[in-house]
Amino acid sequence: MDTQRIERDLLGEKSIPAHVYWGVHTARALDNFQITGTTIGHYTWLIRGLTFVKEAAAIANHQLGLLDETRLGAIRQACREIREGALHDQFVVDAIQGGAGTSTNMNANEVIANRALEILGHAKGDYAALHPNDHVNLSQSTNDAYPTAVNIALIEAIDDLVASMAVLEQAFAAKADEFHDVLKVGRTQLQDAVPMTLGQEFRAFAIMLGEDRARLIESAALLHEINLGATAIGTGLNAPPGYAERACAALVELTGRPLVTAANLIEATQDPGAFVHLSGVLKRVAVKLSKTCNDLRLLSSGPRAGIGEISLPPMQAGSSIMPGKVNPVIPEVVNQVAFSVIGNDIAVTMAAEAGQLQLNAFEPLIIRALSDSISHMSAACKTLAERCVSGITANREVMARRVEESIGLATALNPLIGYYAATQIAQEALATGRSVAEVVLTKGHLSEEQLRAALSPSLLANLDRFSI
Amino acid sequence: MDTQRIERDLLGEKSIPAHVYWGVHTARALDNFQITGTTIGHYTWLIRGLTFVKEAAAIANHQLGLLDETRLGAIRQACREIREGALHDQFVVDAIQGGAGTSTNMNANEVIANRALEILGHAKGDYAALHPNDHVNLSQSTNDAYPTAVNIALIEAIDDLVASMAVLEQAFAAKADEFHDVLKVGRTQLQDAVPMTLGQEFRAFAIMLGEDRARLIESAALLHEINLGATAIGTGLNAPPGYAERACAALVELTGRPLVTAANLIEATQDPGAFVHLSGVLKRVAVKLSKTCNDLRLLSSGPRAGIGEISLPPMQAGSSIMPGKVNPVIPEVVNQVAFSVIGNDIAVTMAAEAGQLQLNAFEPLIIRALSDSISHMSAACKTLAERCVSGITANREVMARRVEESIGLATALNPLIGYYAATQIAQEALATGRSVAEVVLTKGHLSEEQLRAALSPSLLANLDRFSI
Amino acid sequence: MDTQRIERDLLGEKSIPAHVYWGVHTARALDNFQITGTTIGHYTWLIRGLTFVKEAAAIANHQLGLLDETRLGAIRQACREIREGALHDQFVVDAIQGGAGTSTNMNANEVIANRALEILGHAKGDYAALHPNDHVNLSQSTNDAYPTAVNIALIEAIDDLVASMAVLEQAFAAKADEFHDVLKVGRTQLQDAVPMTLGQEFRAFAIMLGEDRARLIESAALLHEINLGATAIGTGLNAPPGYAERACAALVELTGRPLVTAANLIEATQDPGAFVHLSGVLKRVAVKLSKTCNDLRLLSSGPRAGIGEISLPPMQAGSSIMPGKVNPVIPEVVNQVAFSVIGNDIAVTMAAEAGQLQLNAFEPLIIRALSDSISHMSAACKTLAERCVSGITANREVMARRVEESIGLATALNPLIGYYAATQIAQEALATGRSVAEVVLTKGHLSEEQLRAALSPSLLANLDRFSI
Amino acid sequence: MDTQRIERDLLGEKSIPAHVYWGVHTARALDNFQITGTTIGHYTWLIRGLTFVKEAAAIANHQLGLLDETRLGAIRQACREIREGALHDQFVVDAIQGGAGTSTNMNANEVIANRALEILGHAKGDYAALHPNDHVNLSQSTNDAYPTAVNIALIEAIDDLVASMAVLEQAFAAKADEFHDVLKVGRTQLQDAVPMTLGQEFRAFAIMLGEDRARLIESAALLHEINLGATAIGTGLNAPPGYAERACAALVELTGRPLVTAANLIEATQDPGAFVHLSGVLKRVAVKLSKTCNDLRLLSSGPRAGIGEISLPPMQAGSSIMPGKVNPVIPEVVNQVAFSVIGNDIAVTMAAEAGQLQLNAFEPLIIRALSDSISHMSAACKTLAERCVSGITANREVMARRVEESIGLATALNPLIGYYAATQIAQEALATGRSVAEVVLTKGHLSEEQLRAALSPSLLANLDRFSI
Repeated sequence: MDTQRIERDLLGEKSIPAHVYWGVHTARALDNFQITGTTIGHYTWLIRGLTFVKEAAAIANHQLGLLDETRLGAIRQACREIREGALHDQFVVDAIQGGAGTSTNMNANEVIANRALEILGHAKGDYAALHPNDHVNLSQSTNDAYPTAVNIALIEAIDDLVASMAVLEQAFAAKADEFHDVLKVGRTQLQDAVPMTLGQEFRAFAIMLGEDRARLIESAALLHEINLGATAIGTGLNAPPGYAERACAALVELTGRPLVTAANLIEATQDPGAFVHLSGVLKRVAVKLSKTCNDLRLLSSGPRAGIGEISLPPMQAGSSIMPGKVNPVIPEVVNQVAFSVIGNDIAVTMAAEAGQLQLNAFEPLIIRALSDSISHMSAACKTLAERCVSGITANREVMARRVEESIGLATALNPLIGYYAATQIAQEALATGRSVAEVVLTKGHLSEEQLRAALSPSLLANLDRFSI
Repeated sequence: MDTQRIERDLLGEKSIPAHVYWGVHTARALDNFQITGTTIGHYTWLIRGLTFVKEAAAIANHQLGLLDETRLGAIRQACREIREGALHDQFVVDAIQGGAGTSTNMNANEVIANRALEILGHAKGDYAALHPNDHVNLSQSTNDAYPTAVNIALIEAIDDLVASMAVLEQAFAAKADEFHDVLKVGRTQLQDAVPMTLGQEFRAFAIMLGEDRARLIESAALLHEINLGATAIGTGLNAPPGYAERACAALVELTGRPLVTAANLIEATQDPGAFVHLSGVLKRVAVKLSKTCNDLRLLSSGPRAGIGEISLPPMQAGSSIMPGKVNPVIPEVVNQVAFSVIGNDIAVTMAAEAGQLQLNAFEPLIIRALSDSISHMSAACKTLAERCVSGITANREVMARRVEESIGLATALNPLIGYYAATQIAQEALATGRSVAEVVLTKGHLSEEQLRAALSPSLLANLDRFSI
Repeated sequence: MDTQRIERDLLGEKSIPAHVYWGVHTARALDNFQITGTTIGHYTWLIRGLTFVKEAAAIANHQLGLLDETRLGAIRQACREIREGALHDQFVVDAIQGGAGTSTNMNANEVIANRALEILGHAKGDYAALHPNDHVNLSQSTNDAYPTAVNIALIEAIDDLVASMAVLEQAFAAKADEFHDVLKVGRTQLQDAVPMTLGQEFRAFAIMLGEDRARLIESAALLHEINLGATAIGTGLNAPPGYAERACAALVELTGRPLVTAANLIEATQDPGAFVHLSGVLKRVAVKLSKTCNDLRLLSSGPRAGIGEISLPPMQAGSSIMPGKVNPVIPEVVNQVAFSVIGNDIAVTMAAEAGQLQLNAFEPLIIRALSDSISHMSAACKTLAERCVSGITANREVMARRVEESIGLATALNPLIGYYAATQIAQEALATGRSVAEVVLTKGHLSEEQLRAALSPSLLANLDRFSI
Repeated sequence: MDTQRIERDLLGEKSIPAHVYWGVHTARALDNFQITGTTIGHYTWLIRGLTFVKEAAAIANHQLGLLDETRLGAIRQACREIREGALHDQFVVDAIQGGAGTSTNMNANEVIANRALEILGHAKGDYAALHPNDHVNLSQSTNDAYPTAVNIALIEAIDDLVASMAVLEQAFAAKADEFHDVLKVGRTQLQDAVPMTLGQEFRAFAIMLGEDRARLIESAALLHEINLGATAIGTGLNAPPGYAERACAALVELTGRPLVTAANLIEATQDPGAFVHLSGVLKRVAVKLSKTCNDLRLLSSGPRAGIGEISLPPMQAGSSIMPGKVNPVIPEVVNQVAFSVIGNDIAVTMAAEAGQLQLNAFEPLIIRALSDSISHMSAACKTLAERCVSGITANREVMARRVEESIGLATALNPLIGYYAATQIAQEALATGRSVAEVVLTKGHLSEEQLRAALSPSLLANLDRFSI
């Protein structure tokens, strides 16, 4: 594997290992960007997105008579192979890179060109036969090809996240059904409030996820507007008439997604608004996921000196020093994913704000942050569903006892005996350590039967209202 | 004004200045929260929102037979007066407060009650006749009345911001028209790229604002879902049947807004998702505004050692030491507003994440941050439109000269003489300091006429394509 | 008050209300910046800082023969009066402003000049006698006078915050003493761990505050490096030789602070590093304060269905619907202050990053954010100490009972009976609902006496070790 | 490699591939945490830190008679081998994990135990001979061993970053020397201000880095306080007397770092203050680096339509469509690293704030964020120094011409002809397009000789003052 081939760019000649599919532009990027150790090949959706764009551009160029049948066929086959998983180890540029994505685009152009050359029976590097720029990148600029690929990548990634969220939503909903009759004390500001059911509590978690999914799907819709055909700054200089329309149509065909070309390509080329928007929505999802996990950890605190209303399934030993200790490790990992998503949102925000004039040069960081946020959150949702929520059990006696002891029950007496009398009962119960029911009966405000009716679970938790 | 009246709460008696409209609960909050020096009365939209809710609740309570005609009339009149601007100085609680908004809600209940008492000919504090809790707050909890008022406040505030953004959008669009034929060098990554027009550059600013407005309007739509009728934790305990529906209908009538009651009130009561979402969208607007102002400052840099393609109207002397220096103070203030909005988004994020179980106790901070972001950004947009954009002038000769000198013109030659020859021309131009046109003519690649056609403004900037 | 005087600047003439102390530059700023409604006069420390700088500059100018005795005396008197509280309502420029602080500096120059004119028997606006620029701003630029004033303002403000933190630290320490013998269950990851005392728990809160105070004092030290004498960009152009040294000496004398002139004034003029650093430390304080308040709210959750180990003093009624409910409103307000400080840190970060070349134009926002963070956090610390911590009571029986029930006690048996046997005891206790002690005695591992010794509070909580 | 061994934990038995060095606890963590795809083995400094702690604990345990000579020797050899680079692929737990670091700690315990077993001639998994918990983790809890390892890891990592920053500082300083006599226009608020030298401009970049290095070193000092000996919650339960002292002494010996045991171990165990502090300082460094790169990109904008005062060395082709375009890719990648560091700071902040009671469960995310920030920024500094700054060239004629044309020169005339006359000259120069010198000479204010003296570079840039 010692053999080398020579390639050239505007800086001069450079030796490239003969067996690799990437070329001189990728090699320069390897020299320039040694930052994270994570390559773009790690971002499968991005690689797929690039192959969709390159294939669609080739189709459009062929239709316009700019690319012959043979080269078209080879480029298409190379794109399909990569899309199905081949050659990802040839996408070697660091995920954080300068140059507004040019190195990612050229890495794709070079790998596709060299694989296409191979398909056509040529040696790698024999660019006279099929050239990374003149054929694979034909009618494109990084500034339109790259963001279009990114949009497609994010659309696919969001699909995956939405699916994981649905799994988690389902897990919460199943528990809401299971716990529909478990009366418990509701809490506001960590202080005991009025009764509700554990089912209602878990239903709220499910519904929140459903709303967040709807918001995510909305934000994905914005990504369907692409700027392919904009070339360098959106004026479309050098892209032949009809190219943008044909390339978009080919992309729609290949991806099955209702992509549309932006009405104003100059604006579209410089505006990372859809990314910032998506990042804000991902942050929203993260905030809710984190709050939900906080609640799960709080409700399962104990086993004896905490709230202990639910038990999470034990997933691993919690301590090397404390016998029998089990910790809420799954919610904890989800909390951390959420915090990192919120951090990523700030990185996206700063990168977006730093764009200048006709282009945002910092999209590589934006893409990395969004891709990490989406894939980590997707993993987190599935993990939470499968390794935690589905195994949650209710400690029914604990909850039942606390409802009986709860001062909040006095609230239910307001309509029967008035707020003033209810307050006196609440205060006496608190002062004496007795239950509200005991005090009511002692005082003779209500008969036992009346009291039982007033404190019936379905009334307290207003179950009739909650058909969802 | 030395006279005092005595009021009572669960902590005991408290002296209240006789002339004020607020009562004991507000007084406790004044003792407890001395943080920012900014009162809730500063937030006009919030005060309006509270009066809408209190009036609607009174109407619903009256319809259900819980509130008599006389009290209804007095409460409604008090609400209307306040809504039209009266008594804002009586809303004295600090904008950052504990208690999940209870102090704000009670401040409203007390001021409305005391004004209503006055209307009915009673003394302030004569709560037997009309009570802050038993009548003004009837069938409500802070946990539903407060967020509903907040939603209405934000809906109105967003309207104002959207209008200001439209003013700014118009200002940019007018300049886009004015500069539609001014050819200039486009730039990517701060390096000269291919030509465009100044009109296209300003059009992009206008379009961005239009897109952001659309996103803001979408996020406002989420706020139309209210939780009035949820009472303490969303189960609706103590709210009479039919109340939520009637109160919502009254609110729709009073506000003219298509408000709807949330399908699941438990979820709605604990979920600040719509606020987080709005905050994310406000951040998006801020990011774009800041980028736009960065561009304006960059394009107007100079007067002699900068890019100097446009001139901003001078608004004030820039320096006490440098004669004649004028600075871009208006874009600079807008940048700072944008940075503060981005900071506010983090405050909202943390407050939202910190919610626990059935309630988010930190909504007062969320409201403050959102309200400040909206009103400051609205002021910033109007200021930018009126005191900067509308007075921008183009330095046409500078731009024309630079297009002629620009190496980027070589790109336009690609289709005529090929990429390879164009590159050679570009390199020779750079090395010799000559223009691309000079080199082309010297080399005899094209006739003068051909060259003139190739470099025509409408071709370079692809003007036909940009009808918007 | 209808009378007007006419003033002039490079934009032309402008009518100024005759009675006001500010002049044409302030009037322009009023026209340009209508953003927050909060004026710089609200920031007392900043106004004080400006008067120190103006007085010191006057002294240095007088020593260098540039300012006569009469004008010096009038300027000094004006500065002193303002410093002691006069004329703050004349500092009317919006706190968020463009122009890198020029409007703030000119507002100060004009108010001081007009007050000095008054002292000297001249009419306001009679600048031939004493001029805002030529005399009050002599040898200065906004770019050195303003940041120097800001540094002094922040040094004083930090002193105040440090004092408030000390009050809170003392309150926690007093409770640590009071609770030194109250054994309780320690918790990690919200799960019961091994025993400790409530005193140890509160001691940790006190120590954290002490460490944060030390960090704050360190960060204040960085602010003692000033750039007075730098003039426009740090080269000191137009400042006479010896001026920087004399002005700094005068400032040291006036403020009593060990200020020093930066070694490289060009660097010092453009570098907001000390502000970013301070902001990071304020965020650190906020993070800890918030964590502490989260703990207080958690430990006091209840009254019956929570952890309930401590009780916070009731400060106001918690609910209009739930009789007897009291909420942790004081920790809640502190949490919100902390969140806003963390948001302000992002605003500072973005403003600092946006500096360009020889100056950061966004210091007004940085100052506003830092000032708000410091003063709100100072108020929060005092409020927390006085209205919450000092009134906290321990629910000793609850804690004692839970230690007895705690599975974590098994850890203390490791050295006596081995980890394996201890684990078996822990598991049996959990499964049967019995206490660790019961199981041990039943199994005959230890005598009652041995067991009592093993579970002694001082051993479990290792009290000997904690002398602090 | 199909063979398996069986290991057991509190969840039961589990099959482990026979050849791996990790065991059942690591296997559970692999099942539980599949989030990022990046393992802890990627974090070399963390692995090193863990081996230091495990070796020091073994030494202390041996000194106290708890660990025999044979096991000590094997554990020490295993630790040394790993520290020198062996077995990093056995550290397989995901970098984002629940459990407060327990899985990382157990991964280390298991790998060290199994390598030690191998050294002693035992089979992997033969834990009766040498046990991950009973011997490798002896006298430790994750809650003290893990943060201590982290502190050591960060201390080493910061050393590396400080060294990289020094390289960059040197590169800027060398350019400052090279450019010491190049007069140019200084700029504030992107508007031309007074003259300075390019050397002064680059000197400021160097000094900023020097100051940031000093701050970093200070923040590293805080990490020298460790909590080894705290065990579970800081009370030191189960750690034998004298252990903490001996373990710390051993660590000091092994690492050569002046580590000290925290005075209050309960506080130290729960307080991530030093991490938050470090994160704030890293953010400060990032802010300055980003600002510096913004300046480099701005000053090198062009080649013909920008500021173009300096040229960055071309590192790769900038565009596939625009012939000859070269972009500032190295500063761009550094900007992005800076933005990600600022995002990481928010993740650290949220994770730190989320700590509860006696422990912060979210340290794994904190460590990941800090480690990434440090190593990415270190790479960025070296890259910037070597691939950009060292090759920067000055476009001297451009700068000289602009100084001559500059209106700011009028400032230098203030002391000679007065501010009023200077202003008139400035305005006439601007209006007529002539230079300040021309106007002065025309008006006869000064002789040519006087003018030459007044505008001498050393005077304008005040070079005598800048000896640094």
